[in-house]
Amino acid sequence: MNTPAPAANPSTTRTLAGPDTPFAVVDVHKARRNIERLAARAGRLAVALRPHVKTAKSLDVAALLHDGSPCPITVSTLAEAEAFADGGYTDITYAVGIDPRKLPRVVALLRRGVTLRVLLDSTAQAEFVAEASRQAGVPVPAQIEIDCDGHRGGVEPGAPALCEIGRILHDARCLDGVLTHAGKSYFASTAEEQRLAARNERDAAVTAAERLRAAGLPVATVSVGSTPTAHAAEDLTGVTELRAGTYVFFDLVMAGLGVCGIDDLALSVVVTVIGHRSEYGWIVTDGGWMAMSRDRGTAAQTQDQGYGLVTDLDGTLVPGLVMTAASQEHGTLTARDGARLPELPIGTRLRILPNHACATAAQHQGYQVIDSARASDPAPAIQTYWNRVTGW
Amino acid sequence: MNTPAPAANPSTTRTLAGPDTPFAVVDVHKARRNIERLAARAGRLAVALRPHVKTAKSLDVAALLHDGSPCPITVSTLAEAEAFADGGYTDITYAVGIDPRKLPRVVALLRRGVTLRVLLDSTAQAEFVAEASRQAGVPVPAQIEIDCDGHRGGVEPGAPALCEIGRILHDARCLDGVLTHAGKSYFASTAEEQRLAARNERDAAVTAAERLRAAGLPVATVSVGSTPTAHAAEDLTGVTELRAGTYVFFDLVMAGLGVCGIDDLALSVVVTVIGHRSEYGWIVTDGGWMAMSRDRGTAAQTQDQGYGLVTDLDGTLVPGLVMTAASQEHGTLTARDGARLPELPIGTRLRILPNHACATAAQHQGYQVIDSARASDPAPAIQTYWNRVTGW
Repeated sequence: MNTPAPAANPSTTRTLAGPDTPFAVVDVHKARRNIERLAARAGRLAVALRPHVKTAKSLDVAALLHDGSPCPITVSTLAEAEAFADGGYTDITYAVGIDPRKLPRVVALLRRGVTLRVLLDSTAQAEFVAEASRQAGVPVPAQIEIDCDGHRGGVEPGAPALCEIGRILHDARCLDGVLTHAGKSYFASTAEEQRLAARNERDAAVTAAERLRAAGLPVATVSVGSTPTAHAAEDLTGVTELRAGTYVFFDLVMAGLGVCGIDDLALSVVVTVIGHRSEYGWIVTDGGWMAMSRDRGTAAQTQDQGYGLVTDLDGTLVPGLVMTAASQEHGTLTARDGARLPELPIGTRLRILPNHACATAAQHQGYQVIDSARASDPAPAIQTYWNRVTGW
Repeated sequence: MNTPAPAANPSTTRTLAGPDTPFAVVDVHKARRNIERLAARAGRLAVALRPHVKTAKSLDVAALLHDGSPCPITVSTLAEAEAFADGGYTDITYAVGIDPRKLPRVVALLRRGVTLRVLLDSTAQAEFVAEASRQAGVPVPAQIEIDCDGHRGGVEPGAPALCEIGRILHDARCLDGVLTHAGKSYFASTAEEQRLAARNERDAAVTAAERLRAAGLPVATVSVGSTPTAHAAEDLTGVTELRAGTYVFFDLVMAGLGVCGIDDLALSVVVTVIGHRSEYGWIVTDGGWMAMSRDRGTAAQTQDQGYGLVTDLDGTLVPGLVMTAASQEHGTLTARDGARLPELPIGTRLRILPNHACATAAQHQGYQVIDSARASDPAPAIQTYWNRVTGW
């Protein structure tokens, strides 16, 4: 009962006009193009790429990253780590500060032959990791989270705690390296600010690594990244790997920052017109926040895109139409100042481009997959259905 | 240093200290109390209750509504309708404007003996429903959505379209009645405003019903409701049923409106402290927006509660502590002005009370269930696990 059927009738549902709305769609052509773009960048910067799979949470999407074979990945939950380990991935970084109670699941993955690195930013966590490693007889590889911009977690590159943590980890054969994430780059609104954020991110990680090395603590991994900085970095000398996640799908927040164009967005949600309130200038759809999430990431940007921009089923923008309000299963579309409210009869299907791909994707159990590089008529053909990993 | 409890192990995990965080918890004692409160109100108002199951989306939670036996319910998706039909529920209203393409699933449920009513607010939808009924040889019972406060969908009680829609439905033997929802009551910040919203909601529905009847169109159901108006209504003469959903769990938005107290909140999310940034006054947890949702419903209220208030594992509020920021798997707790940031070591478990129960519950596959009426030590005992219905 809790397993969603991808379509009412798989044998006849072959286009986006088929499955009951709302549902999430991935355009594999755009995802591939986004993946190739960053892979080429990483090649030019001579740095390894470790994509973050928390956005798509899909083994099928991840298969696009490296021609179908497992590559190094970053995860946001142990559920992802376990699902990707089941899928043959053996080089995984769990990039959320470790809760000591989760270490038995980490050890279980290590014993399966998965190199699973944990993240931490305190001597208390380092002691837990060291103790768990000693008890298990298996060193848990750990990275020290470096705070480069006051965004969230981490120790500052110059903090005394850095080398204390490094020493505890090194003594337990757990020290793998340092990791930082320029979380504030999501608010860097110009290309120059994004370049500065990338430089600052690199400098913080490399400075921390050098401090550890100067204290006699070997550092293998120097990991940096966010989707904006990964696309802005000019020099990653001293960095061993680059992380990014949202870039596979991109979203309106990234488009608002200029990191991508609207045409690069690979994730959307198909909805149906279920009502009109012409006295208010509203078109009502069956896609509310349950389908889009409550994320309003563009509200802080120059151009607020509401809950999303609207395209037709083929992906062509409907000029001036914005999803401006959401309740659980209702979306309200309105025309921006000056734009004409189009005539869209009851039953018309539309696609909504989301603010934040991670949040919108998380509202769905999986994706209907289309390929906009293949001509199809009258509506984009569904190639397949891809499941997501859920839970923690 | 605190020693974390042993890892999650289904055979030994019997308290909230057990399962890996984050996870959702329902306090069945509080849910029962909330259910009894509204049931008693409906009894005094001499109106039938049709709870909305879209908040909990759980057959187990619904079993609390009517001593374990199926009762009339409201749903927000056909997936809910189908799951509850499988669970023996036969009296269901699908309270989102009908997408004509979904009518085959509606007809399939009717053929199974489920009285499934659909909602609509246009002659176009009425024609689709009439045509589907004729083709199926089964009348699809339909309600006309009435707009009482300019919130979302519906026709106004005095609109000419009302009787046109009613006529189309009646001619196809589909007309069941009218339904309205005082969506704006979620912004009615005083008890008096809520009483006025309830009166207005009733008046709109009854006026519409009387207009239809005066036109010779029989109206069986006159349905009103929202959690605030259901708790504020003083006189429901002419109304046949009352709907509400959030009231089973309640949330900080409802507490902010004074509809409930903080102590009535039956849903929370258990998180773990994974870091400290004393220089910023932050405690970092492993519960981000993936666990809480992006809903910031209290931001528009007098007291903005951030992403939620914080309690200890027993449910006692930690004074002044608020979850003020969220990324995907990180939550940031800060002290309100004047409050002291408590010392909460790495590994400490806390519970977060959400802004919006519907949105937070939707981030989870199910609920760990506790009963705060039963004494338990050192942490609340887990009674059972309840699944949610997902998808559309």
